[in-house]
Amino acid sequence: MKDDCIFCKLANGVFPTNSIYEDEDFNVILDLEPATRGHALLLPKEHAANLFELPDEIAVKALVTVKKVAAQMKENLGCAGMNLVQNNGEVAGQTVNHFHIHMIPRYEADESMVSWKKMKPSAEELVEIKKQIRE
Amino acid sequence: MKDDCIFCKLANGVFPTNSIYEDEDFNVILDLEPATRGHALLLPKEHAANLFELPDEIAVKALVTVKKVAAQMKENLGCAGMNLVQNNGEVAGQTVNHFHIHMIPRYEADESMVSWKKMKPSAEELVEIKKQIRE
Repeated sequence: MKDDCIFCKLANGVFPTNSIYEDEDFNVILDLEPATRGHALLLPKEHAANLFELPDEIAVKALVTVKKVAAQMKENLGCAGMNLVQNNGEVAGQTVNHFHIHMIPRYEADESMVSWKKMKPSAEELVEIKKQIRE
Repeated sequence: MKDDCIFCKLANGVFPTNSIYEDEDFNVILDLEPATRGHALLLPKEHAANLFELPDEIAVKALVTVKKVAAQMKENLGCAGMNLVQNNGEVAGQTVNHFHIHMIPRYEADESMVSWKKMKPSAEELVEIKKQIRE
């Protein structure tokens, strides 16, 4: 646990939360400022700032845990779909430097909120980017 | 492989792609309509419509694979951060019914694009939602 990390304290029960799931590695808690009804955060109990620092043994368990909790949310909340969002770095909108996955239930009447402007790169530009990443 | 699924064909090399990573279970390809330079999609080779249908043995490997490829993208593209987005259901903005994780590199000059309006539920409302999910 990192002393000055609020999500460490929430994940490990130092501060009270509305936890909807807990096991040895994770706590899934309701977001206090939700995008939709039931918006939750998967938090590893062990501190890692972001995806790049997440230990492999936690990464292995994270999505399976999200899947299990998502199924329960779908059944009990009656949502029609779900967005997962995981931000890394201030430039990506990460506001707390403790890895977390947003689980955002979506209902029929929701407005779209996870979207982006689509660019249209040429085939040559795409090949160049591929080469740069694979170099 | 599902016959009428475009992402099955892309993941399994039936159609050409700009692949930046491939192993036994996954193909990571550049998005043809990227949000940012290097925007990629992690695609399982085996068909699953969404998170709810994703086999556990693929879910276990998915985030570790994303982490590995993300590190390579960060190093070679020089991005400052990354958004992961994974949409389930038409209501959540899913346009192709084959599980995929958007990997969106973020650079200093980007506009914010993954965001939502924050609601302010009362403590009582949050407890009620928690109970409904855990019931």
